[in-house]
Amino acid sequence: MGKVGKCSLIFENSYLSETATITGPLEKQGPLGGYFDKSYDDLYAGEDNWEKAEMRLMADAVDLLLEKTKLDIKEIDCFLAGDLVNQVVISNYVMRDLGAPYLGIYGACSTSVEGLLIGATLIDGGFGNRIICMTSSHNATSERQFRNPTEYGGQKPPETTYTVTGAAAGLITNIKSKVQIKRATIGRVYDPKIKNQSDLGRAMAPAAAQTILDHFEDFNIQPSEYDLIVTGDLSKYGSKVLREILELHHYDVSSNYNDCGLMIYDINRQRVFAGGSGCGCCGIVSYSYIYQQLLNGIFKKVLIVATGALLNPIITAQKESIPGIAHAISLERVD
Amino acid sequence: MGKVGKCSLIFENSYLSETATITGPLEKQGPLGGYFDKSYDDLYAGEDNWEKAEMRLMADAVDLLLEKTKLDIKEIDCFLAGDLVNQVVISNYVMRDLGAPYLGIYGACSTSVEGLLIGATLIDGGFGNRIICMTSSHNATSERQFRNPTEYGGQKPPETTYTVTGAAAGLITNIKSKVQIKRATIGRVYDPKIKNQSDLGRAMAPAAAQTILDHFEDFNIQPSEYDLIVTGDLSKYGSKVLREILELHHYDVSSNYNDCGLMIYDINRQRVFAGGSGCGCCGIVSYSYIYQQLLNGIFKKVLIVATGALLNPIITAQKESIPGIAHAISLERVD
Repeated sequence: MGKVGKCSLIFENSYLSETATITGPLEKQGPLGGYFDKSYDDLYAGEDNWEKAEMRLMADAVDLLLEKTKLDIKEIDCFLAGDLVNQVVISNYVMRDLGAPYLGIYGACSTSVEGLLIGATLIDGGFGNRIICMTSSHNATSERQFRNPTEYGGQKPPETTYTVTGAAAGLITNIKSKVQIKRATIGRVYDPKIKNQSDLGRAMAPAAAQTILDHFEDFNIQPSEYDLIVTGDLSKYGSKVLREILELHHYDVSSNYNDCGLMIYDINRQRVFAGGSGCGCCGIVSYSYIYQQLLNGIFKKVLIVATGALLNPIITAQKESIPGIAHAISLERVD
Repeated sequence: MGKVGKCSLIFENSYLSETATITGPLEKQGPLGGYFDKSYDDLYAGEDNWEKAEMRLMADAVDLLLEKTKLDIKEIDCFLAGDLVNQVVISNYVMRDLGAPYLGIYGACSTSVEGLLIGATLIDGGFGNRIICMTSSHNATSERQFRNPTEYGGQKPPETTYTVTGAAAGLITNIKSKVQIKRATIGRVYDPKIKNQSDLGRAMAPAAAQTILDHFEDFNIQPSEYDLIVTGDLSKYGSKVLREILELHHYDVSSNYNDCGLMIYDINRQRVFAGGSGCGCCGIVSYSYIYQQLLNGIFKKVLIVATGALLNPIITAQKESIPGIAHAISLERVD
């Protein structure tokens, strides 16, 4: 274990032992619907406002994870969680009811991998035996906070992404199991000077490319190292930019690259504009479909690159551009 | 190194090697004014809006830290930073100009210690040799976001705390120096069911007490272990509650307890209501006065308990109460 190259880490004893995913209805109707643990039929999830609905999704995810693993909350050494709502308040209020040690993190939609990355350093460093990483997003809480309330019914340009409603929780342990957390690359903020708040895919793509290039360089590997290289939520337009940047650097990812935002929805059939986004997007796809394909041995090595647009509505109103960040982690099937 | 008890960690090879602190004018006029590296005469810090002013403070702190340590930015393995502005956007935009590996964190005003804690796990775990932890707060950005713009001139009740304007940056390394990061206790969210957004000191005090009690229990120590036990920003009213809770548990901190919010300002002379608050409050007092007293050997062992009110204006408008969290870290003089 330790540091590798400029921005990367290698782990020896960290395993993603179990996961739980909860979604809203649109995600259930998408191509990966069969891989989720539980889905609500409506966006309220039985609660009386959007924020409480998102808390319900995250609380359900951790409850289900504890149930699946037969662990008591007291056996969890630390939680790492974050979300998109200001002051990461969804995570804070879910943790209020759990009473366990907790570190709040924020990397916009890169949060799911940021959690895995810090969690694996804690486990590998011997600072605990069981760490839970959680994240969530909700279409209505995000739309209101970053753009307009959904009830307002504003028109959207085709570059817009659709914030995923759902939560994902994963347990990292030092007990050998089928899916190992092996490599990570810590992201660096990159600003391509895009000011359009509807075009976050293109705003994040260069940061994702930077992290993937750092990863290849730090580990001295080629894209073919992985069965799948998947970004978080670059969507139709951002993914295209990413492919172009990697091609400029002579890396060919034509056969093994995809984006969680294009996997969780069918953008030709579902009304989601350029694809899915939000903390939940990468978290849910990683912890459901990708995790299960690793368990089944369909995938051997996957590089997950969660992408975050470091957007703040006040700062963009001050005519600033929108920087991005991306953190990468590899999940590898243990034989 | 490793886990201790229920919520605590112990470190072996992590040192707080250097610090830098930048403040606004009111902090400079306070009792600790002589300990800060640099102070601006006005809240704009030469910029044209409050957010840019806060970014300037944090950027200055890291610039000065690199200058003091004669390190190039490329020699820093990772930055850990967070602040109070939505989407921790101050940290994100400062990191945009640095281009270094970066993990965003959010623990409200407990962020300074959360950064030190995660930083020490990275250093002790061998995931880097040099980590910089940063935080900031600004009176005008916080007032506008959490209450009203300062220009509005709203009256304030006496329980209100005054958000500190300033930034603090610290370098953690594995090279032995005079101040060692030795013990940490990870906080657990605690909600005393207070709904008054002006009374954050009392809202956080039970979480601080819980962390201090966890710390004493995990390490099997008494308050006399430390020359100073200092909370982040409980202020006049919150500190009183904390003392009372500790007394109920038969712990006497009458001779060695203080609060950064009561140290950074003279609440009898300066118009700061119940004392200082904000991410900058604990960060600046820890990295200036406390750090220098440790270097000078005046203090041998200090326990810093940074306190965060997990407040979100939308959630409190939904009639929810305000939970708190507190993370603790010990700084110890190496002979």
